[in-house]
Amino acid sequence: MAREYVNMKNLRFLLHDVHQIKEVLAQPYYAEHDLESIDMMLDAVKQLSDTYLFPHYEDMDRNEPQLEGGEIKVHHSVRPYLDAMGEGGWIGAVAPMDLGGMQIPEMLGVSAAFVMAAANNGATGFNGLTTGAANLIVSFGSAEQKEKYLPKMFEGSWQGTMALTEPQAGSSLSDIQTTATPMPDGSYRIRGQKIYISAGDYTETENVVHMLLARIDGAPLGTKGISLFIVPKYREGEHGELVFNDVTPAGLYHKLGQKGTPATHLMYGEKDDCHGYLVGEPHRGLSYMFQMMNEARLLVGLGAVSIASAAYHASLQYAKERPQGRRYEDGKRDLTGPQTPIINHPDVRRMLLLQKAIVEGGLSLVMECARYADLAKAGDEETRAHYELLLDLLTPVAKTYPSEMGIVSISQGLQVLGGGGFCKDFPLENYYRDIRIYPIYEGTTGIQSQDLLGRKVVIKNGKAVKLLMAEIQKTLEAAEAYEDLRPYAEKLRAKLETVQQILMHLVPFAMQGKIERYLSDATLFMELFGLVVVAWQWLKQGVVAKQHLVSGKDDPDFMESKLHTMKFFYHYELPKTLGLAERLLDDTVLTIAEDTRELVN
Amino acid sequence: MAREYVNMKNLRFLLHDVHQIKEVLAQPYYAEHDLESIDMMLDAVKQLSDTYLFPHYEDMDRNEPQLEGGEIKVHHSVRPYLDAMGEGGWIGAVAPMDLGGMQIPEMLGVSAAFVMAAANNGATGFNGLTTGAANLIVSFGSAEQKEKYLPKMFEGSWQGTMALTEPQAGSSLSDIQTTATPMPDGSYRIRGQKIYISAGDYTETENVVHMLLARIDGAPLGTKGISLFIVPKYREGEHGELVFNDVTPAGLYHKLGQKGTPATHLMYGEKDDCHGYLVGEPHRGLSYMFQMMNEARLLVGLGAVSIASAAYHASLQYAKERPQGRRYEDGKRDLTGPQTPIINHPDVRRMLLLQKAIVEGGLSLVMECARYADLAKAGDEETRAHYELLLDLLTPVAKTYPSEMGIVSISQGLQVLGGGGFCKDFPLENYYRDIRIYPIYEGTTGIQSQDLLGRKVVIKNGKAVKLLMAEIQKTLEAAEAYEDLRPYAEKLRAKLETVQQILMHLVPFAMQGKIERYLSDATLFMELFGLVVVAWQWLKQGVVAKQHLVSGKDDPDFMESKLHTMKFFYHYELPKTLGLAERLLDDTVLTIAEDTRELVN
Repeated sequence: MAREYVNMKNLRFLLHDVHQIKEVLAQPYYAEHDLESIDMMLDAVKQLSDTYLFPHYEDMDRNEPQLEGGEIKVHHSVRPYLDAMGEGGWIGAVAPMDLGGMQIPEMLGVSAAFVMAAANNGATGFNGLTTGAANLIVSFGSAEQKEKYLPKMFEGSWQGTMALTEPQAGSSLSDIQTTATPMPDGSYRIRGQKIYISAGDYTETENVVHMLLARIDGAPLGTKGISLFIVPKYREGEHGELVFNDVTPAGLYHKLGQKGTPATHLMYGEKDDCHGYLVGEPHRGLSYMFQMMNEARLLVGLGAVSIASAAYHASLQYAKERPQGRRYEDGKRDLTGPQTPIINHPDVRRMLLLQKAIVEGGLSLVMECARYADLAKAGDEETRAHYELLLDLLTPVAKTYPSEMGIVSISQGLQVLGGGGFCKDFPLENYYRDIRIYPIYEGTTGIQSQDLLGRKVVIKNGKAVKLLMAEIQKTLEAAEAYEDLRPYAEKLRAKLETVQQILMHLVPFAMQGKIERYLSDATLFMELFGLVVVAWQWLKQGVVAKQHLVSGKDDPDFMESKLHTMKFFYHYELPKTLGLAERLLDDTVLTIAEDTRELVN
Repeated sequence: MAREYVNMKNLRFLLHDVHQIKEVLAQPYYAEHDLESIDMMLDAVKQLSDTYLFPHYEDMDRNEPQLEGGEIKVHHSVRPYLDAMGEGGWIGAVAPMDLGGMQIPEMLGVSAAFVMAAANNGATGFNGLTTGAANLIVSFGSAEQKEKYLPKMFEGSWQGTMALTEPQAGSSLSDIQTTATPMPDGSYRIRGQKIYISAGDYTETENVVHMLLARIDGAPLGTKGISLFIVPKYREGEHGELVFNDVTPAGLYHKLGQKGTPATHLMYGEKDDCHGYLVGEPHRGLSYMFQMMNEARLLVGLGAVSIASAAYHASLQYAKERPQGRRYEDGKRDLTGPQTPIINHPDVRRMLLLQKAIVEGGLSLVMECARYADLAKAGDEETRAHYELLLDLLTPVAKTYPSEMGIVSISQGLQVLGGGGFCKDFPLENYYRDIRIYPIYEGTTGIQSQDLLGRKVVIKNGKAVKLLMAEIQKTLEAAEAYEDLRPYAEKLRAKLETVQQILMHLVPFAMQGKIERYLSDATLFMELFGLVVVAWQWLKQGVVAKQHLVSGKDDPDFMESKLHTMKFFYHYELPKTLGLAERLLDDTVLTIAEDTRELVN
């Protein structure tokens, strides 16, 4: 049996039935698309992934990029893949048509990225970063910058990057030291170094366009003195020719996973000849970058869920095919008969259901966020503000839940294979390595959790949380129409109360200026909040599945399986909130550093 | 600062103060040892580990064993290491003196193995397997077998293995198909193949002694027809010379981690010339092997805790040295000052405390088991039965808690390093890969959990659980003597009641013969039981730390840190039992396979 990495039926179920892309398509901005064209594009993505991505997944891991003679070479499949992506219009797919994009909804963009990353997450970073960098230029670049960079980036010839991290400035971006000196011609001279720059340099691309954060000479301290620059590897010379722009790879990181994408250490302006071009206004770079970061955070959550999807399908197939042990019947095992496929053992089923619950619940959450992005993009001012607030609140959750729980899910998936899971004969160990970066990418889980509790929850006096509660309320009401869903609506309602109770316990610390105390358990709050939000996504899916079953529509097995997995989430995963709530309401805090003595040794 | 991998002070604290090795040494069997010689041996182990193990850890991972021309070559550091181990007497350390051992307590053996595995877990499998195989011969071999094999094994010249797993028989050992045909000379001809045999063959050893399970022709079905054989790679020929015994490596597995130890696929008797020598009686092989398995399970738990220890110390050092971000003071961050070491951030401290709590709690649990093994070994019949029952009950827990939670702890440790944790510049990614096999080795977590709930909990009408409760009771009483420990004693008491409540809910299913239902959540029961047992180990440590503080003895900072970590375990980890208990008392079971339709898809 050919190995699968995504369930396309589930993807369409989420896109059409649960999250109703038709509502998004009804907006004038998306007039060029309809349900049929959306489905055709999904088919095209699957085809592209089957051809250019999935077959190279293992080989790309085994043959990681090499830095030799100052040049980085990547896997041979990268160039043909990026050409196909450019040709298919996927790199600029979400961008407006007048800038060369296809103006597709984020919901479709996310669906496409899901399929591709599930096929080969070591390759999709290349185009993902180019898309993110290009989107920054779309939003904040000048007309000239758009014209110069976007076409080459959208066709896949020029690579884009995010150049933020420096050796002394990782999570603390306010400590960025790369400098930008203004020149008479309006450009800047860039000097500094950046680390962990994914796809930062390689020979199989014509050019690299770095979206780089730096301080203009004399800029204020902290995040308010950071500006955004375009820094190409090759700049345009006097006669339009490409001239080397003094950006040099100083090193290549060797990583646990996701080896296909080179992570580079770059030197800018070692020979004092690195030209940078300011994007937008000075000192506003971090707020611009946050647009890209927020998109990127959603895509990180999506990437994690994609890898978890591929792992789930690999485990599922193994569990269906591998005979081992026997079931108990009437309290005994019959040794004379054949062994049973391990999917029939409750413990294995539990692990598979956990994988499925995380993958399909996490994907639904990311899709929900994409829907908010689409509705915000196309609506009026008030609608925009409404959905942007929801998106702001859910982005750190949609980044973190799939990343953290994706690891758990893949680890369980590896466990399904026993010794085989630990060996390179099966892909589980590869997925296990790949996904470990996701809780670190684009702001660690700790940073996301501080963003959620420290900013998003308290923004506009808690308005975002109120809007979310209203959204969840709609699902609760829909669920209560069905007797067998009512107990699950009740469970979720109780958990919403727990969230409120915890916030009422914690927020006073913030109001008293006790910020360390307020945020000391932020990561545990994130864990609890993520469980509740994903429980909501499962109920939402359960309602639609129930509607389909009642109306006698298509595929009752698929819908029953949805309900079964929803129940699994509520009976096996959601109870974890109990322990988290006890912790979050507990006033014995043991993680705030004492000045007097070192208790961690 | 030189990197550390163990806290020797903590090891001595557990060995001497918490688990009172002096009580074990008081037995006549250990008359050759005293507290001073024990400490000297620990120093020698640390020295050996610093010299032969730790320096090669990274290189051994990067240069895994190779199979070329039918021969397997291992890392160059393996041979000198095994020579040093043999010379130091460590391979046969636990064996009786009259068989060439040092007759040291298991508690010391476990302490030594902890230090060595923390230094380089990719290497310690070699000697660990030889020790395990030799112990089987010690227990069940004939005088002739002891004489022939033990000296060579103890000196490190001959490698030992456990040859159980076959392609169709992993978790289901009853399905072993390797055959043993009786020959007139009393030996057997072995035919079959074994997979995943660690250290199963390599050129840097003179011989390999496989402790192999096979079926004698005509043996009954299932586990009751399995016999144990010694199958050397080279057997003794007619004139005492070594003759090739038709054991051939057919393949080498490429693994996620622990790459130093070759995992081999072996063919026995391809040319019909593989001689096996029966150990003990026919058809009793599995019960013999279970002695080795139980020892091995304890050592697996110990190995996991060792890797987690090394990871903890690497994370701790990084957190103390890495400046990033600033603390909040009066609700604000001062951007003009220097950045703070990340150990001062509550979220990082939480991760470090979690690591410490798992490492020191897990190690204490393994040490407790070793103490039971020692007391059983040296006592009278009744004492023996008492401690063996306790050991039987705790062995699956001591295997599983460190394995499962060691993964969590190392993952948090990797997270402490951010991007650095994902890169090979730091050892965290290596530890992360290494430890992933531990929940699979020697019976997966699922198998251990079924052993715990399905066998150990119900053995002799629950007598083992009663004995454990009595042991815990002693700790509770000791804790209640101190006002500030009393709340923790109360918490633990409440959790013991939870365990009882769950058993009263579940055991009736077993009595009704509903075995699948009884065991369906066994893994979750294991998780809960492990938390409770480790909470006990933490209270036990807390009591001793408190006693030291009250008596004004040595090192108050160390003792305060113990109490702090104990509290952390109770306030941050133990609440997880709430969700697990809700699940275990929940009658909606969703993991038992239906015959009618496939709900996992």
